[in-house]
Amino acid sequence: MGTTQLEAVQEPKYWHLRTVLSEALDSEFSVGEILPNERDLAARFGVARATLRQALEQLELEGRLQRRRGVGTTVAPPRVGVAVGTRRHAWPGAADAAWQPVDSTRATPPPAVAEALGTGRDEPVHTVRRSRVSQDQPVAAELLYVPASSVPGLTTSDAPSGEAGARAVLRELRRLTLARQESAVELGSARTEEARELDRLPGAPVLVVTTRYATESATAALSVATYRADTCRLTFGDAGDVEFHEGAAAGAR
Amino acid sequence: MGTTQLEAVQEPKYWHLRTVLSEALDSEFSVGEILPNERDLAARFGVARATLRQALEQLELEGRLQRRRGVGTTVAPPRVGVAVGTRRHAWPGAADAAWQPVDSTRATPPPAVAEALGTGRDEPVHTVRRSRVSQDQPVAAELLYVPASSVPGLTTSDAPSGEAGARAVLRELRRLTLARQESAVELGSARTEEARELDRLPGAPVLVVTTRYATESATAALSVATYRADTCRLTFGDAGDVEFHEGAAAGAR
Repeated sequence: MGTTQLEAVQEPKYWHLRTVLSEALDSEFSVGEILPNERDLAARFGVARATLRQALEQLELEGRLQRRRGVGTTVAPPRVGVAVGTRRHAWPGAADAAWQPVDSTRATPPPAVAEALGTGRDEPVHTVRRSRVSQDQPVAAELLYVPASSVPGLTTSDAPSGEAGARAVLRELRRLTLARQESAVELGSARTEEARELDRLPGAPVLVVTTRYATESATAALSVATYRADTCRLTFGDAGDVEFHEGAAAGAR
Repeated sequence: MGTTQLEAVQEPKYWHLRTVLSEALDSEFSVGEILPNERDLAARFGVARATLRQALEQLELEGRLQRRRGVGTTVAPPRVGVAVGTRRHAWPGAADAAWQPVDSTRATPPPAVAEALGTGRDEPVHTVRRSRVSQDQPVAAELLYVPASSVPGLTTSDAPSGEAGARAVLRELRRLTLARQESAVELGSARTEEARELDRLPGAPVLVVTTRYATESATAALSVATYRADTCRLTFGDAGDVEFHEGAAAGAR
């Protein structure tokens, strides 16, 4: 353990470079500006390309840089604050313009979802896809799992799938009385489908927000929402949509 | 843009390997088990070492694997759920055994903190360090910034620093009536000092939770808490300490 502690205090070379680069971003560059290419940067700071790349990846992870093929590396704007889990006792989609229904299917969910919902392993549930856009950028993709028992009013005249189907499921869901909702946030990486929706590459870091909506008697729906970790800051609190002062978190450490 | 979209749907090789490895973890390995070494794994899956390493890094980011020098790569246990921002209108440290005061100093905070607190740029504030342990593992390190105006009752007989100083600041802070609290969660990387507290290397991914505590008239304190992203799932919701069913989020996508 003593050895681990000692190793932990030593700064890797790329980490030192990250700090130097970060200060250079503050003093020499403005948001949206394109950085010099990797060869020039490596020469300027006297480091190997591999070290430079590690430092750039780190700053991308921290939301300071954006890297896009064909454009280069640019200085990222401050992260966008997006409110999550703030409206208490509100069903998903209840008068919520932030989320757009995309489509709906009926399929067997992953085993962990079936367990959380208390449905049978092979029991199909409605799976509503929604997407969230903020400041003209895709910020989140959501899968909302709804057991058939939560929407008994769905009729054969309702669209079975597509965007109309999604709206029908959400409409019926809102007839239930919500008693509780609990959320969890964790780090994940974008699956192929999510990556496309979020305009990122597969494997890009995302913040995964899982929310369980419950009535007095049962779990009525489970939402798994995937937020871009590079551009989003998730806000929650008493005020609902109060947003942090831009940059407060980034500069507070 | 069309090109970006097309590129986005192609799966990099390491990403495919990640999926294959993830399935192998489910079916062939148990929690805590040590994986074969990189050379053997690369040979088994017919990939280059670099590709294998990328896939392993990805699975570490997702909390599926843990890598430790001298031990090797092991299958990670499910993430620990830690409740954040759940007790409403509760001051930090109010009868909260989860957080241990470490020390307290009086210093000029980073500019972003001074701005959030509404203090002058050069005005020193109390900086209380606290640490959070769950299941015998360090899970979070916190810096709590408290302006002198929030703790007018601190006397010269109170310890000016150290753990006793931290307790004195927290005790005085609790005399104020809290009106609001707002939090934000975002992805960051561990600074050197935090990394040591969290038993990680500098640059390790962390979830940064910034919380602003306000009275009716002013921001009374600002907390910046850094959670290990590899082992933590942050939970919040109506029930306060209700935790998600283990693995629900990880397996839900």
